[in-house]
Amino acid sequence: MTALASDTTRDSDAATGGDVSVVLGIDVGGSSVKHLLARSDSSTARPPTPLARGRNATPTSSPANGLAEIVERVRGDRTLTRLVLSIPGIVDEQNGVVVRSANIPALDGTPLGRQLADALGVPVDVINDGHAAAVAEASWGAGAGIDDVFVLALGTGIAGAHVIDGRVVSGAHGSAGELGHITIDPNGRDCSCGRRGCLETIIGAPALHAAWADAGGKGGPEELLEAFASGDGTATAIVRRAASALAEALLTLCALVDPGAIVIGGGLAQAPHHLVMLAERYVRERATFHRVPPIVPATLGGWAGANGTVLTALLRQHAAAHRTPRTVA
Amino acid sequence: MTALASDTTRDSDAATGGDVSVVLGIDVGGSSVKHLLARSDSSTARPPTPLARGRNATPTSSPANGLAEIVERVRGDRTLTRLVLSIPGIVDEQNGVVVRSANIPALDGTPLGRQLADALGVPVDVINDGHAAAVAEASWGAGAGIDDVFVLALGTGIAGAHVIDGRVVSGAHGSAGELGHITIDPNGRDCSCGRRGCLETIIGAPALHAAWADAGGKGGPEELLEAFASGDGTATAIVRRAASALAEALLTLCALVDPGAIVIGGGLAQAPHHLVMLAERYVRERATFHRVPPIVPATLGGWAGANGTVLTALLRQHAAAHRTPRTVA
Repeated sequence: MTALASDTTRDSDAATGGDVSVVLGIDVGGSSVKHLLARSDSSTARPPTPLARGRNATPTSSPANGLAEIVERVRGDRTLTRLVLSIPGIVDEQNGVVVRSANIPALDGTPLGRQLADALGVPVDVINDGHAAAVAEASWGAGAGIDDVFVLALGTGIAGAHVIDGRVVSGAHGSAGELGHITIDPNGRDCSCGRRGCLETIIGAPALHAAWADAGGKGGPEELLEAFASGDGTATAIVRRAASALAEALLTLCALVDPGAIVIGGGLAQAPHHLVMLAERYVRERATFHRVPPIVPATLGGWAGANGTVLTALLRQHAAAHRTPRTVA
Repeated sequence: MTALASDTTRDSDAATGGDVSVVLGIDVGGSSVKHLLARSDSSTARPPTPLARGRNATPTSSPANGLAEIVERVRGDRTLTRLVLSIPGIVDEQNGVVVRSANIPALDGTPLGRQLADALGVPVDVINDGHAAAVAEASWGAGAGIDDVFVLALGTGIAGAHVIDGRVVSGAHGSAGELGHITIDPNGRDCSCGRRGCLETIIGAPALHAAWADAGGKGGPEELLEAFASGDGTATAIVRRAASALAEALLTLCALVDPGAIVIGGGLAQAPHHLVMLAERYVRERATFHRVPPIVPATLGGWAGANGTVLTALLRQHAAAHRTPRTVA
């Protein structure tokens, strides 16, 4: 239940010698880049003690070069055996290519894995940031100890990832887990995806913002949740509708996927007693044949993605050592 | 695309000698038991040529003894290395126990795997019949050559199974794949599962029967589909509504699971140009971000289950030979 790192110190390297084999995980965000360095022989059973951790501004003009510089600086004279980066956007994980990143457009179409592998001389993997956060929450966060976890991030959009044995089950085309775009209200509002009445049109942050503003509320979703907590009637109606929609989506998830735990994170879930616990209550009230698993808030917060890159690096490191056929080098 | 067997001959054993190692697959139905015998070293890439195949009446009074007798007779003097049975009902596959079988109540609570293993001296697995049919359709039927297949059986109930690399992804509690019980119409009819407006309340055979009878139609779902094919307006409205509901369920499936193919079988799908192709058209018309895979009719018909037991036997046989830790002995 503990995060590998939760502070924001810059390069707080431990005093280790040069003869250490390490893996490096880097969570590339729109504004900052978080890194975590761990021994290559760390267990994946729990978060390893980081040899270094820190945060830098995201290099936006020439990101591949900027990232290579960060890697060189962080690894110092240690032997780097594997690097994993997470990127916000659509990633071709098999080929290490950033297909499209709305937050870091300079990376669009970049074969980042190949470029960094060539520059650094080590195996490099590039993964989606939501997948990184999900594997970390599933293995080291709220889902620790459970083999089969569905991780849901509630925010502007809604991202889901089904994690089995530490791997995201990403579907035949890499697009599984879109719980935000299953239909909840066939007669509902238009969704950004082009359909109507998706979960996101009811519980996405912009939808909550609009519903709250339409009802005369001040501020955004945070203020809405505060008003709900203080018993405001208008806020209660909006939050109940959102929690009800989330409950319906979770019942569909249980019927179709039957996960062993559901972990809910993201901005909207940081006050879990508000929205998530209400949704859980509705799920348990409405379930019939469904096997409803524990529904719990995420625990790793903003460092989930960085933890996930380190975990992925360790898993692939170990897999490579055991010569399994699915290793990506 | 070819079934391992599709006729109903009784014990049409080939003239093979006694020094052959074989696996036996038995599909136990409510009225008949189908068996297929194959060489233990058969490839799983395609349906092996059966050494024996046949059908017997289901032994209902003392089913474990009756099944053991069938096995003894079919194997003859060959060396049986593994037996897999499929059972209609709830099966604890890990322990080989028939939890509940509405069609063969004498098996309820029976540790059939253990009993037959003791009686026959070979490893025995017991699996759910829908799972058996699904792995066969995915690997040897309409899904052959695709690693990630969702198999749907439309009939009185609606059963789904997600098959990846020849294994059913059955969820944390063994109850994944319940596409028939996701909500399509929140204001719809009461469902047998205790909820409302599930897919099954619109496209299940009893629902179609009722809708057709309510509209003055004669006969059941088959007659409904015939009337639809001949352009009857009332039948068209009912079938369109059913296909539309199925399309919505398949869009949810694509969003959440993202399979590489969707195979649709079962009694209602035997005229695929009627219902399934209409549903597919709706899916393609309504899809936005979804990656819609091929949606194809099942090809193995009534022998899908028996094929699945042989395939499962071969897969576990090979896994045991490679000493993988997930082997069930």
